[in-house]
Amino acid sequence: MLLSYLKVPLSSKLLTSYLLNTTIRTTTTVSVNSTIKQDNQTRNESQGHRVNTGILLLNMGGPETTDEVFDFLNRLFSDKDIMPLPAQKTLGPLIARRRTPSIQEQYAKIGGGSPIKMWTEKQGQGMIKILDQISPSTAPHKYYIGFRYVKPLTEMALDEIEKDCPQQIIAFTQYPQYSCSTTGSSLNAIARYYIAKKRKSKLEKDNKVSNTNNSLNIQTSNDLQWSVIDRWQTHSGFIEAFVKNIRNELNKFPDDVRNDVVILFSAHSLPMSVVNRGDPYPAEVAATVQAVMESLNFSNPYRLVWQSKVGPSAWLGCATDDAIKGLANNNRRHILLVPIAFTSDHIETLHELDIEYAQHLATSVGIKMIRRCASLNDSSLFIKAMADIVHEHIQSQRRHTTQLPLRCPGCVNASCEQMRKFFCSSS
Amino acid sequence: MLLSYLKVPLSSKLLTSYLLNTTIRTTTTVSVNSTIKQDNQTRNESQGHRVNTGILLLNMGGPETTDEVFDFLNRLFSDKDIMPLPAQKTLGPLIARRRTPSIQEQYAKIGGGSPIKMWTEKQGQGMIKILDQISPSTAPHKYYIGFRYVKPLTEMALDEIEKDCPQQIIAFTQYPQYSCSTTGSSLNAIARYYIAKKRKSKLEKDNKVSNTNNSLNIQTSNDLQWSVIDRWQTHSGFIEAFVKNIRNELNKFPDDVRNDVVILFSAHSLPMSVVNRGDPYPAEVAATVQAVMESLNFSNPYRLVWQSKVGPSAWLGCATDDAIKGLANNNRRHILLVPIAFTSDHIETLHELDIEYAQHLATSVGIKMIRRCASLNDSSLFIKAMADIVHEHIQSQRRHTTQLPLRCPGCVNASCEQMRKFFCSSS
Repeated sequence: MLLSYLKVPLSSKLLTSYLLNTTIRTTTTVSVNSTIKQDNQTRNESQGHRVNTGILLLNMGGPETTDEVFDFLNRLFSDKDIMPLPAQKTLGPLIARRRTPSIQEQYAKIGGGSPIKMWTEKQGQGMIKILDQISPSTAPHKYYIGFRYVKPLTEMALDEIEKDCPQQIIAFTQYPQYSCSTTGSSLNAIARYYIAKKRKSKLEKDNKVSNTNNSLNIQTSNDLQWSVIDRWQTHSGFIEAFVKNIRNELNKFPDDVRNDVVILFSAHSLPMSVVNRGDPYPAEVAATVQAVMESLNFSNPYRLVWQSKVGPSAWLGCATDDAIKGLANNNRRHILLVPIAFTSDHIETLHELDIEYAQHLATSVGIKMIRRCASLNDSSLFIKAMADIVHEHIQSQRRHTTQLPLRCPGCVNASCEQMRKFFCSSS
Repeated sequence: MLLSYLKVPLSSKLLTSYLLNTTIRTTTTVSVNSTIKQDNQTRNESQGHRVNTGILLLNMGGPETTDEVFDFLNRLFSDKDIMPLPAQKTLGPLIARRRTPSIQEQYAKIGGGSPIKMWTEKQGQGMIKILDQISPSTAPHKYYIGFRYVKPLTEMALDEIEKDCPQQIIAFTQYPQYSCSTTGSSLNAIARYYIAKKRKSKLEKDNKVSNTNNSLNIQTSNDLQWSVIDRWQTHSGFIEAFVKNIRNELNKFPDDVRNDVVILFSAHSLPMSVVNRGDPYPAEVAATVQAVMESLNFSNPYRLVWQSKVGPSAWLGCATDDAIKGLANNNRRHILLVPIAFTSDHIETLHELDIEYAQHLATSVGIKMIRRCASLNDSSLFIKAMADIVHEHIQSQRRHTTQLPLRCPGCVNASCEQMRKFFCSSS
């Protein structure tokens, strides 16, 4: 979610609106791809690389180099779905500009950039390989990466999908637990792309009709059969992958303290305004924690805590850093941090948990030993779980969960309604 | 939790401190029961009603008649574990006095009083009957009721247990999910009782030693082997009992809308100050919801929402009433309310959900059909689950969960530490 980028007060010039840029890019994209679905398919087949099943891996992404930090932040702060701001076209770029130097510094400390694209590629490749084996009837499978705030952007992935024109296409969120700020934002972006495309196509059709060219049957590319894996918070393979990593890490504590280690499951927090409108994320993260602890046979005491709060408004707690301090105060000296809502490393694990909390904070409050459970990254159990999740989704013949059609009770974001019409209306 | 009683501003005279009364009562109790454990046991056996396994059912309780409302509220507002107030000995009774008339009115509307004692007795009797059958080696079993705020008070139950002197005694919280405000408060009360008893016994012993009467070996009655069932948020029997009641209620919706009914799992909310210190309750309630929905095969869209917020401070949301309004705004017209953190009916189900929300609010915002899932009450599935939970606890030979010893990271309540020393130190 990376809302933690909102840390510095504003005082800069207006920058070109990212939102405007996005609109231009999307429009251009659509004009390039306003070809007919059947034509795409024929072309792909003739080139011998027809895709049967496309799987679009959705995530936020992170800047691969420090040079990309501004673009990343600019897109993030311009995203109304994650963070509606007053005068967003102006304010978003301003905040991004102000935040860029300090975030660049953080990325410099973790090796110069986010590894999320590298891990997503490894995960995607591994998943496809397994899927081609366990589900030959839907092979060949191809994965696409759709990041919200860095390349490959969701819109770029959609262009590629349109060109490949697979028999079926699955949007597979890489956030295990659904939040409107994460999966919701990615799905809204997909819906917006197709709504714009349809509008463009209709315009072209109207023009052609007015030119009396009736022979061409224009089809919008949203004839593609989309389905969505919109959450998988307690999938057994996902849980087992975490359990294995947690056990590995617990084994690194001395025998005589191992059972007393407090497991702090740490998830990115949300503003209370989001929680209070009924975002399902806190409950789904809690469900993951319960499933992990059940599988661990409740070997250790634990708490679910929330990291990365920023700004003056109220966010969901207990905050991870407060929890570390509080445990120290209560003479709990051994802690295992588990980043339970992330599937690969990024700045919140590598900088916030590893450097800010485990290195600096824990030492200063007298924690004797603190470790951080490995992220799933290239975990073979997790990659197998990804393939299983897709396979089970295909076999279920369901287009989405029963939860997806339900907007949050307090939702007033029109994009959320549009997205549900796009993904759920004909199911 | 019934924090909803704090609704009216203060303007009354000081009343006698309830806390002070409690102290006096406890002290008196201890002097009556400062006999020797073996003596108790021998007497019980000779009278032919020896208890092998005692099970203390812990809950908040509710006033059986409107005449009991003040005493109930007075104890509630004097409980520092649920609601620390400035100048509590003064303020607690004041708030109670002010709130009494309106709460009496609510109880009058639901038949004149809380049915919680009646249901707990039925549940206890049913549970004992099953336990005597499925666990003959620990029979005879006897249940005790320990309410926090009405008779039979926890301290009265403890007196009775001390007299019966069972071979083993199990504190069985009737709150499925652990909160410091509920189960924590009850366990703190037990620990306080025994700490006071030990202190009293030590004093008596010292007196006797000084009188050179060394022949009597004084044993404090906390030699009783206490163990605790401190949470059972996903116990399969408990889940199945709720699932059956939910299915029954869903079947009362017309066929053509049944799958679109939104299930609102409604639990008593907590102040954010409690949530933010790391109270495990929100995550455990979410775990229950996930388990129920898994068992329902995710037949319907759902949300976990929070009821009974009062006062000006921030509480955890989305609030149940806001959710009903929001769903109506988003054209969701069919709702099933499920009181997921209660095991029997009381004012929050019978008045808040049934009258305030289902009758008045839902009608005013255009909900077409709203129903409330039956509470577990005398559900045979639930009573069997209670027996199973106890049986499994006995077989496990564990004194408590691994969670109980861990105080909330932000805890500053010394009683919580004492309680853990009492229940967990020798395990």
